[in-house]
Order: sequence, then C-alpha cells, then structure tokens
Amino acid sequence: MIHPAELIQRKRDGAELSADELAELVLAYVRDEVPDYQMAAFCMAVYFRGLTPAETHALTEAMVRSGETIDLSPLGRKVVDKHSTGGVGDKTSIVLGPIVAACGVPFAKMSGRGLGHTGGTLDKLESIPGFRIELDGGEFLAQVRELGLAIVGQTADLVPADKRLYALRDVTATVDIIPLIASSIMSKKIAGGADAIVLDVKVGDGAFMKTLDSARELAGAMVELGRRAGREVVCELTDMDQPLGRAVGNALEIRECVATLRGEGPGDLVELALGASGHLLALSDLGIDADQGRARAEEALANGSALELYERWVRAQGGDSSLEALPSAPIVELVPAPEAGFVQAIAATDVGLAALHLGAGRVTKDDAIDHAVGVVCLAKRGDRVEPGQPLAEVHARDEDSARRGVAEVRACYLVGPDAPEQRPIVLDVLA
Amino acid sequence: MIHPAELIQRKRDGAELSADELAELVLAYVRDEVPDYQMAAFCMAVYFRGLTPAETHALTEAMVRSGETIDLSPLGRKVVDKHSTGGVGDKTSIVLGPIVAACGVPFAKMSGRGLGHTGGTLDKLESIPGFRIELDGGEFLAQVRELGLAIVGQTADLVPADKRLYALRDVTATVDIIPLIASSIMSKKIAGGADAIVLDVKVGDGAFMKTLDSARELAGAMVELGRRAGREVVCELTDMDQPLGRAVGNALEIRECVATLRGEGPGDLVELALGASGHLLALSDLGIDADQGRARAEEALANGSALELYERWVRAQGGDSSLEALPSAPIVELVPAPEAGFVQAIAATDVGLAALHLGAGRVTKDDAIDHAVGVVCLAKRGDRVEPGQPLAEVHARDEDSARRGVAEVRACYLVGPDAPEQRPIVLDVLA
Repeated sequence: MIHPAELIQRKRDGAELSADELAELVLAYVRDEVPDYQMAAFCMAVYFRGLTPAETHALTEAMVRSGETIDLSPLGRKVVDKHSTGGVGDKTSIVLGPIVAACGVPFAKMSGRGLGHTGGTLDKLESIPGFRIELDGGEFLAQVRELGLAIVGQTADLVPADKRLYALRDVTATVDIIPLIASSIMSKKIAGGADAIVLDVKVGDGAFMKTLDSARELAGAMVELGRRAGREVVCELTDMDQPLGRAVGNALEIRECVATLRGEGPGDLVELALGASGHLLALSDLGIDADQGRARAEEALANGSALELYERWVRAQGGDSSLEALPSAPIVELVPAPEAGFVQAIAATDVGLAALHLGAGRVTKDDAIDHAVGVVCLAKRGDRVEPGQPLAEVHARDEDSARRGVAEVRACYLVGPDAPEQRPIVLDVLA
Repeated sequence: MIHPAELIQRKRDGAELSADELAELVLAYVRDEVPDYQMAAFCMAVYFRGLTPAETHALTEAMVRSGETIDLSPLGRKVVDKHSTGGVGDKTSIVLGPIVAACGVPFAKMSGRGLGHTGGTLDKLESIPGFRIELDGGEFLAQVRELGLAIVGQTADLVPADKRLYALRDVTATVDIIPLIASSIMSKKIAGGADAIVLDVKVGDGAFMKTLDSARELAGAMVELGRRAGREVVCELTDMDQPLGRAVGNALEIRECVATLRGEGPGDLVELALGASGHLLALSDLGIDADQGRARAEEALANGSALELYERWVRAQGGDSSLEALPSAPIVELVPAPEAGFVQAIAATDVGLAALHLGAGRVTKDDAIDHAVGVVCLAKRGDRVEPGQPLAEVHARDEDSARRGVAEVRACYLVGPDAPEQRPIVLDVLA
C-alpha cells in the first residue's frame, strides 16, 4: 500500500523512487485509487526534479502493464514498427510501411489520433474512402501475416495509463518533460509488440522539440527505454524547420504518398523514407545492414512493388486505393511570390495552423476534419522564385477560407536575395 | 477569462503573475471552475518558484474575498486578535484573552479546528461543559461589545478558499511552502476583522517551523501581508522545543489556564502570555507602549480582574467556569525519573503524540476527542530531579492506555548530569 502524498514529497525533495513505488503509483492511478490532483502534483515535481533512467523505465513498464499488450510472436518473424514525434506534413509511415513490407519484412503499427495542427496518420488514412482504421487483434495479426503490413488505431485498452496521464499533463503545464514524453511514446511502442523500432524525433519550428539538444535528450531516453525493455531501437533526429514534403492536409498527403511510391516524391520525403526503411530493414531478420536495406528500399520503389503493396494494403483495410476516390477541395488558390529570390524559410508551425484554419485538423478532440483541404508548398527552402510565381496552393472549402489561407501561407514564406545554406533532412542518428 | 494551464506554466517557468490573474485563479477555484488537479500543479510550481510579496498579497486578498468578512467597525474601538502557528501545550490565547479584555481592550478571535497532536483552542474550550464555540455574527459582535472578549469557531463562510486549498495541499506535498502558509493564516486574520494582530510563530521540535531561519521567513511574510492589508502586526518567534507550560490535553490545559489567571502558572506560559499581552495592549487604542502594556497585564493578573473576566466570558458563552465542572480522567499514573540529574530536553512532538494516543487529539477530522486525558509535565527543561521522582503525570481513560502513555512519556525525557543552558521562551520579535 503506497502513500501517494509521501511519494510526491520524496520526488519533490529529489529522491529516487523504487520501481515498485512507481508501478503502484501508476497502476493505482489507473484504478482511480490515486486522484488526478495527486498525479498532477507528482508530474510537476517531476518537471523540476526529473526521473532517473531506472525510474523512467519503471514508469514505462507500469504504463505497459496498465492495459493489454499485443503479442506478435505467433507471426514467427521479427516485426518492425516506426514512430515519429510528429510534424507538419509528416506522412512518412504511409510511405515506408509499403516499402518495408514489399521488402519482405512485417510492419505492424498502431497509431494514436491525438490533436494536431493537421490530422495524424489515422486521419490521413481515413481520407481514403472506406479505409478502416479499427481492426480487432485477430484481424490485425492476420493482415500482418498475410500482407506484411497493417496500420491501425490504438485500441482503448492499449496503455490506458498514458491516455489518462497525457490528458492530465495537457492541462497542468506538465507536457514538456522529457522522461514523461519518452515514457508515453515508448510504453505504446512496447505494448504494440514490435521487436525493433525506428523512432523519428522531429527538431525545429514545426516540432515539439525546438532544439537539437532537447531532441537528442529525448532520443537518448527512448533508446535507453528500448534497451531496458529488450527492444532494438534506432532513433533519427530529423529537420522540421519547414513542412516535410509539399502537401499538408489529409487527402493531399495521401496523394503525395502515392506519388512518392511511384518514384515522383519530393526529395526530403523520399530521402527520409529511404533512410528510415534502411534502418528498419537492418533491424529485421533479413540479416542485412542499413546501406543494403536502403538499396532494397530503392529497388522496391523503382520496380513498383512498394506501390503495389500500398494498393493491396489499402484494399485489405477496406479502402479504395485509386487517386480519383480521394476527396478534392472545390477551391484551389495560388499563393504568388511577392518578389524574386530564394525561399529562405517556411514557418512550419504557421503552415500547419493555416491548414488547421482551412479545416484539416482539430482544435478539440470532437472537431470534424475536412479531409480535402490543406496546403501544398510548391516552393521549398532553397528554391529560386520569380515575382508572381506560385509559392503554394491553398485547397479550401469556400472563398472566405481560401482568402484567409492565402494570406496566412504567404506570411509563412521568407524570400531573400541569397540562396540559404542547405540542411540535410536527417540531422543525426542514435542507436 | 483566465487559462489556468497557462498561469501554471508561467509560474512554473518563474514568471510573476499579476494580482488579477491570481485573484481569478483563486476565485474560479472556489467556484469549481478550476479543478483540483490544476490547483495542485500550481501549488507544486509555487513550491519550486515561490511567490513574490506582491503575489502573496494578491493571493491573500483573493482568499479573503472568497467568503464573508467580519466587520468589527460597529464597535467603534480598535480590536486586537492573536494567532499562534500551534505547538504542544499551547493554550496562550485562553490566558491572554481575559488579560487583555480585563485591561479594557476588545479581543475578538476566530479559531480554526484543524488536526493536531492535541486538540486546538476550540477543543480546549469545549472541554468546559456547556461552552458554545458557535456564535452567530450578531452574538459575536454583541459579546465583544459587552464583555470585551469572544473566542469562537470560524464560520464555514470565512475564507472558504483556504479550507479547500489547505485540504488539497495536505495530500499533495505542498503544505510546507512559506508564502502559502503565510497567506492561509493572514487571510483568516484579515477576514476576522481585527485591526491589530499579534502572531506567535513557534520554532523547534514541536512546531511546524523547525528552524529559526524558516520561522523568521514566515514571520516576515506575515508582517508584510499585514502591512499591505492595512493591519498592524507584531510577530513573536517563541520556543517550542519542549511543551509550553506543563499541561498537554484539553481539560488539563483549561485547569492550567485558570491557575495562570490566579497567578499560579508555569513560568514559560506566564512569560509568554504577559509579553504577548503587552504587545496587544501596545497595538490597542490605549496609547501605551509594550512595557506599559505588560505592566497593566501583570496588574490584571495580580488583582484578579483577568480571572474574573475569564469566568464572565465562559458563562457568556454558556460554559460552567468552575474547575469542578471539568472532566477528569479515571486513572492518573506517574512517570518516574530513571536517574538523578537535570532534564536536558523534553521531545515536544512525542509528548503531543503520547497525548494523542491517550485520546486527546484527532487522527482524522471525524475522530472524537477525550477531553479529560493528557499529560502533565511536572519537570521541565533545566529542572533537577532525583531517581524515582515523578517527571510527569499521565491522565488516561484506562490501564492499558495509561501503561503505554507512561512508556511513551518516559521516552520523551532526556536526563543528564549537567544543567542545560537556559533558553528564553521568546526568541525574537518582528514588527
């Protein structure tokens, strides 16, 4: 029997709590035996005092134990998964899932919905007519076995402690605490059952982690949690100072994923997807390294097998894989360049907000999403533009929102006379 | 319209909040518009970041505004009040109230019940058969006008924010935060309506403040709050390393109060009561200083007027002022000195706990108190004792609890060969 007030006080005073104490705290919280107000005080104490790696591990294990876990061992294969901390235009999973599966490696991903400027992976998939994001455990396993690929919504029973804790942290100024972020992400990955995980921590204006240092700290914490849980983890730190790819908005992003699988994707998205696929294949049971993995991924794009797998996957989850089936916005307005020069920067968060205002995302969890609307960044950082040349397209549901969207997107672009320094999309890799 | 999560975050990040923001936070909390979990996170952020004097004042003002306030201006006199942070055997208010009133100065005190090793002032008064601690506002005012003295329980409407906040802090490891303690105490004193207040901050083993430094910090914060609220405040820091006086336990303490008013009180209690009375009279409209006040207080003890006022006061609140009316414990056991020597120390908290175990206090707020039981410390620090000489009396309701009480009280006494250094009861005075 724990005394929550005593645990809060000891954490507040800088002590290290035992694994049993943390486990009881989390599990009692999920059983409603520890009230929100004690957990809120605990989280704020953690903000100031941190958690040791052992504490973070104990917390994560308890979160995993708070609900059901997925057993992928019946597949008899090493299964890989991927997680991104989220950014504007991030549709990488929808590209690399088919690539990896086309290379013969089972890819099983459970995705959370979450709030965001634009929709999450599930919202993007739901812009495909008929696509079912809810498969039961048996269907999920069978599809991974038969097709090698499934991306589904998390069941309500997966890490319920995280759902409650995240909702609480969101309203008590305790979100930005690295061990709690690491624990939240990794508990879901561990409960999801994959043996090996590639993590993508976004860094920059459009990401939760604004600096490379904080991103590196989060990455280190997650790699350590994976190691302690017996999972292989590779963590990439990738640029999120401008939107990823060109499309921001659900159906627009699905179109871009299909283009990428056809070999016609934007450079940064292609590079990110190939690099992450290489790491995933290197972590698989194929017995190859990341360079060999990347070569196979390139081949899967070039020979059409990844695209074919995408189409089979969409159909397997009930969707219509044709581009014609995707919703389109009635109004498309262009955002003209105000002057000649080079695109110096595209404010990623503001592009995300513009898409949100167009209707592509949710402010509260009950908001409906308009899958058709969004922004397409025709010009990216480093591109040379002439006056009046379109910088971006605004896909809108009506004239008013189009007008507002054009003004907002124009303000996101910084154009200047000199070519900016080029930055790679992958900033660092931790393993 | 405030955003509590934003205020929590700004406090967490070390910002100073405005008076309006703090007022809205507190008042929205009392209206149930801010939930406990946000207030708990806020209090923990305050633990680490503190509050500026301006913030502490704003918080206190909002707490006062959260409920009713007492208007003592109809009395047309400067009214004084007194508050102690609480200690073992602290019955000072019951002695100095009659002294001050006998000197012609109106004394109006509202007391909280609170948990404690031994009962609070209200519990002590309730050991007097018939004594009513609940007077309505009109009765309270009339009694102060006619008699010059009333000590009553706080109404539920006095500073409701403090009640809720204290209950929350108690279970979230956020009690020991000096600006919040200062605000809790001073909000009730300010709402209670007195123009001038003498505060007694106890320091030592049996007190909440264990060190002179922390006590001085609390005292400074309270004097500043009084100044900002336009009240005159004097704060004494007094010793609580051993129980105050000899009696610990409700009716036992009332007997000691009466003895003190008869001029037969223990030295430390007499000294404390006379000193505090001097300050109270100096703060009154008599136009005298603290030394003159103390001289008048001594006279009120010597000429019997304080005792007479005590008896009139007890009768006015419905009580029987005779000593015979007070309950007595059926069993009184002596605690013998184990060896010859000088009493070096008496562990105040442990004496309080011994009294609690005998039934003199409450563990939870619904516990019933046995007014008759308790401990009388016959020997105090510095007293020379012979082997077998009684150190203390244990007043118990049965043999079992008496046996336990004797063992516990014996363990509180440290006897050694040399006379310990004498310490004054009043350690410092701030104004």
